[in-house]
Amino acid sequence: MSAARKIIIDTDPGQDDAAALMLAFASPDELEVLGVTTVAGNVPLAMTSRNARVVCELCGRSDARVYPGAERPMVKPLVTAEHVHGKTGLDGAELPEPSMPLQDTHAVDFIIDTLRHEPAGTVTLCTLGALTNIGLAFKKAPDIAPRIRELVMMGGGFFEGGNITPAAEFNIFVDPHAAEIVFRSGVPIVMMPLDVTHQLLTTKARVARIAALATRPAEVLKGWLEFFERFDVEKYGSDGGPLHDPSVIAYLLRPDLFDGRDCNVEIETVSELTIGMTVVDWWRVSGRPANARVMRKVDADGFFDLLTERVARL
Amino acid sequence: MSAARKIIIDTDPGQDDAAALMLAFASPDELEVLGVTTVAGNVPLAMTSRNARVVCELCGRSDARVYPGAERPMVKPLVTAEHVHGKTGLDGAELPEPSMPLQDTHAVDFIIDTLRHEPAGTVTLCTLGALTNIGLAFKKAPDIAPRIRELVMMGGGFFEGGNITPAAEFNIFVDPHAAEIVFRSGVPIVMMPLDVTHQLLTTKARVARIAALATRPAEVLKGWLEFFERFDVEKYGSDGGPLHDPSVIAYLLRPDLFDGRDCNVEIETVSELTIGMTVVDWWRVSGRPANARVMRKVDADGFFDLLTERVARL
Amino acid sequence: MSAARKIIIDTDPGQDDAAALMLAFASPDELEVLGVTTVAGNVPLAMTSRNARVVCELCGRSDARVYPGAERPMVKPLVTAEHVHGKTGLDGAELPEPSMPLQDTHAVDFIIDTLRHEPAGTVTLCTLGALTNIGLAFKKAPDIAPRIRELVMMGGGFFEGGNITPAAEFNIFVDPHAAEIVFRSGVPIVMMPLDVTHQLLTTKARVARIAALATRPAEVLKGWLEFFERFDVEKYGSDGGPLHDPSVIAYLLRPDLFDGRDCNVEIETVSELTIGMTVVDWWRVSGRPANARVMRKVDADGFFDLLTERVARL
Amino acid sequence: MSAARKIIIDTDPGQDDAAALMLAFASPDELEVLGVTTVAGNVPLAMTSRNARVVCELCGRSDARVYPGAERPMVKPLVTAEHVHGKTGLDGAELPEPSMPLQDTHAVDFIIDTLRHEPAGTVTLCTLGALTNIGLAFKKAPDIAPRIRELVMMGGGFFEGGNITPAAEFNIFVDPHAAEIVFRSGVPIVMMPLDVTHQLLTTKARVARIAALATRPAEVLKGWLEFFERFDVEKYGSDGGPLHDPSVIAYLLRPDLFDGRDCNVEIETVSELTIGMTVVDWWRVSGRPANARVMRKVDADGFFDLLTERVARL
Repeated sequence: MSAARKIIIDTDPGQDDAAALMLAFASPDELEVLGVTTVAGNVPLAMTSRNARVVCELCGRSDARVYPGAERPMVKPLVTAEHVHGKTGLDGAELPEPSMPLQDTHAVDFIIDTLRHEPAGTVTLCTLGALTNIGLAFKKAPDIAPRIRELVMMGGGFFEGGNITPAAEFNIFVDPHAAEIVFRSGVPIVMMPLDVTHQLLTTKARVARIAALATRPAEVLKGWLEFFERFDVEKYGSDGGPLHDPSVIAYLLRPDLFDGRDCNVEIETVSELTIGMTVVDWWRVSGRPANARVMRKVDADGFFDLLTERVARL
Repeated sequence: MSAARKIIIDTDPGQDDAAALMLAFASPDELEVLGVTTVAGNVPLAMTSRNARVVCELCGRSDARVYPGAERPMVKPLVTAEHVHGKTGLDGAELPEPSMPLQDTHAVDFIIDTLRHEPAGTVTLCTLGALTNIGLAFKKAPDIAPRIRELVMMGGGFFEGGNITPAAEFNIFVDPHAAEIVFRSGVPIVMMPLDVTHQLLTTKARVARIAALATRPAEVLKGWLEFFERFDVEKYGSDGGPLHDPSVIAYLLRPDLFDGRDCNVEIETVSELTIGMTVVDWWRVSGRPANARVMRKVDADGFFDLLTERVARL
Repeated sequence: MSAARKIIIDTDPGQDDAAALMLAFASPDELEVLGVTTVAGNVPLAMTSRNARVVCELCGRSDARVYPGAERPMVKPLVTAEHVHGKTGLDGAELPEPSMPLQDTHAVDFIIDTLRHEPAGTVTLCTLGALTNIGLAFKKAPDIAPRIRELVMMGGGFFEGGNITPAAEFNIFVDPHAAEIVFRSGVPIVMMPLDVTHQLLTTKARVARIAALATRPAEVLKGWLEFFERFDVEKYGSDGGPLHDPSVIAYLLRPDLFDGRDCNVEIETVSELTIGMTVVDWWRVSGRPANARVMRKVDADGFFDLLTERVARL
Repeated sequence: MSAARKIIIDTDPGQDDAAALMLAFASPDELEVLGVTTVAGNVPLAMTSRNARVVCELCGRSDARVYPGAERPMVKPLVTAEHVHGKTGLDGAELPEPSMPLQDTHAVDFIIDTLRHEPAGTVTLCTLGALTNIGLAFKKAPDIAPRIRELVMMGGGFFEGGNITPAAEFNIFVDPHAAEIVFRSGVPIVMMPLDVTHQLLTTKARVARIAALATRPAEVLKGWLEFFERFDVEKYGSDGGPLHDPSVIAYLLRPDLFDGRDCNVEIETVSELTIGMTVVDWWRVSGRPANARVMRKVDADGFFDLLTERVARL
């Protein structure tokens, strides 16, 4: 495992977060999960902290450490998305309450301590929810930002617009001020926007291939995907819903599946109409310097091949 | 001409505005141009007022009436686009200075008087530039809005983003406050955004077909289109530039060429980052009522067939 | 009357506007009222246009010309203040409906035409309400701004804060975008903020002196002042209410009664919390250049002496 | 000392912060300083952390614990005020570098831990600078807010306007987002705005009385006050500068010296023109509920008597 890339997964599970965690835990040769930090977002913090542990145990990783983070965004009141994810955030499969413990250390402190103690440039942050924990960590300990190898996030949208408002994607909308801090931090950022994740549709055929694995994790994942897609299938009239968060982990395993461009990204924080929008300067008309690698295309079949193959290993 | 639809064309020529005027003047059976009103935008007002008359004369319509309008946007300072249109706004062809007069009446008063004196519901406004004249007219005479049959505008963008900033299209960016007034007026609006006009590329083959008409107007139009496309070809790496403004006139002649949806559209006016953005709620996530028919698709070949056929008549 | 200063009074009567009109009409040696233009504000336009004529007739000036202006602010929806002025705007005295006509010309056009035809630098604008008519005139005819001798306004507040919101005074709050246009116009501005007008309290003794004149105009004014002050007496617990608008006319007659400073003034237009605030840089910390003479002190007894003496002449 | 009120002083010294610390350390019968937490503001964090210890040692309290906090505001870039306080923040007196240690624990964690371990309702926060540490603590540990007895802050202004911009006072301007969090927290707040502190002028006579104590601390304080007042004396033309921060400590010792009112206070965070303004609804026109006790008057002589008497004890 010496060659495995060290990652911290910051997450608010959520069925698609769960799929991302499964993909990571199923890839120990490539990825060493130093810790899972939770944040309020899809559902409140108590529930995301529970759900993260539910997924760890499903993956046989009750040894993983889960650190609870921020209950609320940095400045805005909390907005959640039970209309998409169901009451628990993991509706769609019956799973036992977790028995593994929640760590005492706050997520913000775990992130700070880890980045200070691991060699500089070795730890990657994978963010699947609002960026509150990262924003708070950067403010409490500005010295850690230059020590981060890369921050790979699911968040934002540009040519696809938003999903929670016409202009804003949910993760950034929940905490735009934290997002602003991250995009101004100088950390190397890879951004997986809706433009990518709306290509990753959970079609019947793709879900059937996962179900055909006939393992317990595969069966659970099938239940989650079928629940989760309902909302978007109805909204967009598409065949399957977009599988957002696993794109982050897939990128670490197979960056060749993705295609993007270095761009300037600014976060709208002042206008009620457009707050939470990721203003991506794809065509470089603003003259502002690039601060993120923004992905736009993905090999969707390659992605689902990878996901299926790895879930089979759990 | 009794069946012709009565229109006022509000414009800031601009090569693509010129193409729109040509298309209108070439269609007297369908369209009766009551007047051409000018506004500052692509180039300053003195130049757009000159250019409108240049185009009238090129079309053999020195009898048309051109009314000068607003020199500056309602609230913001003026921004122009000589980097796209050249110094005169009509760079690309040599044409004589116009000899037809500019009307004494202000564009705002012409619009108000016309709407008050023509039967209610008979006059269509075609706007090819910033909406300053319309906004001022609505504020000076609120009684005219319910008398308008339809307002067909080139402006805004959604899944295509902006062109003058990452978030804003030029016409709306120039005068977002006037745009807000229009979108809140209750007038039936048809919006031709960049999403449509970026499909109307002036490819070599299409320009060649126009040039092959071998008339003076066709030759001039060819020069304009070749000049105008340079900027966007370089920026987007596309084959030809987008021909924005004639989409408005084409819609009046052939609405079947276009496809769209009734949506809510709000205008961003407060944030420096996103000011001038048309926030189009295509997926109806906001719960706000529809206030415009927003076009998204166009039969580009059908459009260029129409343009070529009509220019041949001039 | 050859030496009289030429003025246009732009107004939304309102009892205190009425007092200002009385003061102007009572001073023909010093002031020539070229016209009275009306705007929506304290009450809707139809009512302010009626009220202006009511006051003209009360002053025996049925020959005066009253021009109706904007029904609504430039960008914002209209807010009125019947809670202060009563349903008619002139509650507090019974007066006959006016028989003099309203002019056909729009206020905006009267302002433009007058400024173009009178010698440059001879006409003063006196604004007692929202600045909508002035803003529209400046946008329709940018050439008139440099021809204005001076613009004396009642509006704004700084060390006194606001009255309609904690941050904003009513006149500026009603149309902040028009105010922004005026303060950026380069016109010489004299501003009478709440800081001045809150010193002009209609105490019992002062009202009694006016009532003692025992003329019909004095009796009516007494009724208005007593009605008008109720709101502020209750709010501030003061002896009498602030008499805002006549300060503008008093300044033209007796500038020595006022004391102020050249300052930079910016208008808040973007924040919902502070919109309509006049940000006055009294202590010159911003480095922005002065664009208005902002009054802060007034000789209140001198002011009421003047008002009483002039009302006696009517 | 059992009856002494437990306080945490959050500070960015600054000469007036230093005077506040002296006042607190000189009052052990009434106040138990659990810790001093530092924040960036008047000068950068390294300097405020140094200065806090310099003052502790000057007061003979090298046993006090000083905890370093946030280097930068929550969202905005850092703005400092060396033009007021001099390069070190404590210009005006020569003092040795401190030898007492800086604590390892971060200020945010000290605040959280203390509030969790002391009985609920017993700890008062005294904030003399930007509210960054408090904002971060509230976000990391939302459970602590209801455990705070009272938060007494120097910050904001209303009828006095601002000092760093026409609208904003320095402490709130530095971190308006943190201020917004605090004012929305439900914690009982007492606010000492510029309206109070501009009454606390360091006149020659007052400084001379302190100097006459002829102790080392008094001599140092004299040097600081004379340095610190230069800026404001020049700006306002007043006799002496305003002594802001000790008002917070004086309030704990002698609340009878102050007079104020329960008001709603909102923080402007979106407009560049007015950002950092404390919108105080003194006249209750907004209908928003009170969330702070806002002081407006102070017995300035009583305050300086108290300060002088206590400094004599050091």
